[in-house]
Amino acid sequence: MKALFFLYDGYVDWEISPLSYILSETNVEIATTALTKEVTHSGKFKVHVDHITNESLADDYDILIIPGGDPEPLFKEDSLKNLIQAFDQGNKWIAAICGASTLLGSSSVLRNRKYSSSIEPAEFPSCFNPSYKSEADVTISENLITAEGNAYIEFAVAVGKQLSLFKDREDELETVLFFKNQLRG
Amino acid sequence: MKALFFLYDGYVDWEISPLSYILSETNVEIATTALTKEVTHSGKFKVHVDHITNESLADDYDILIIPGGDPEPLFKEDSLKNLIQAFDQGNKWIAAICGASTLLGSSSVLRNRKYSSSIEPAEFPSCFNPSYKSEADVTISENLITAEGNAYIEFAVAVGKQLSLFKDREDELETVLFFKNQLRG
Repeated sequence: MKALFFLYDGYVDWEISPLSYILSETNVEIATTALTKEVTHSGKFKVHVDHITNESLADDYDILIIPGGDPEPLFKEDSLKNLIQAFDQGNKWIAAICGASTLLGSSSVLRNRKYSSSIEPAEFPSCFNPSYKSEADVTISENLITAEGNAYIEFAVAVGKQLSLFKDREDELETVLFFKNQLRG
Repeated sequence: MKALFFLYDGYVDWEISPLSYILSETNVEIATTALTKEVTHSGKFKVHVDHITNESLADDYDILIIPGGDPEPLFKEDSLKNLIQAFDQGNKWIAAICGASTLLGSSSVLRNRKYSSSIEPAEFPSCFNPSYKSEADVTISENLITAEGNAYIEFAVAVGKQLSLFKDREDELETVLFFKNQLRG
């Protein structure tokens, strides 16, 4: 299985760091893509990505994962829009957390599907139809997995569950409690 | 204020990603250092560091932060040992989580000070004196802040508190609950 992370300047790394770890530990191949070869995350580390977005092909991956941050400058980027649409048209998983859900709206893949986001729909009326905002902090709608930013552990575990990465229910529950520092015994 | 992160191949990014975010959001300057210009973290992203370790000077920073991973290959690296000792001799903060506490032992800065780590002392008798293993998941001993890996939020908040980054106690408590997705209202 192969996962592609789309990264951009100011992306919020803690929203996806437990997820990339879980993927790596379960032998999912990981690649990164961005509009430029290097981006700086919100914690100020410089990440050197594996591929430029217009050279990344949805066919090569099973899931596209996008962290939050300030995605608004990306709304007009055709290479990103094409990539998101290609994942959707191929019925591949797309996982977006926090502000990244706006990119699913700006790429017209949300349609009439329920979604979660830390962003209020009124802030981005061109991206979101408020009727489809979910009450849950993680929402799975067909091939879309979306989440509020502070639900980054629940998001990671939801993605892991959809990709059948956990051995069993116990493994899944232990993962949640481990990352919340509530695992005892 | 300036923070230096020492990174290495396989370092566990989620153990420090909330901390680097909190530092960045509170205007602490962040720099990264490693033995090589590029390292790959446990989630398989490639990080391009700002400085090589033997060119990093403790005098330029207020705190050194080291994530867990597999630090054993680093025990013999004099440039890292010198850097850790220079932070300690300058009475600057050193924050180490999970396996990184072994590096404080291998650099002889732990001495007779209490520490936390996810590693059992018996695994690294050259690093740890079992009498000083703390029962707590985060331990502050003079200028050393050490933690178990799964206490990465508590670790980030302990560092933030020691550096006086929180506006008040409410801000500190809200930060814990936010990252545990338990903040309501």
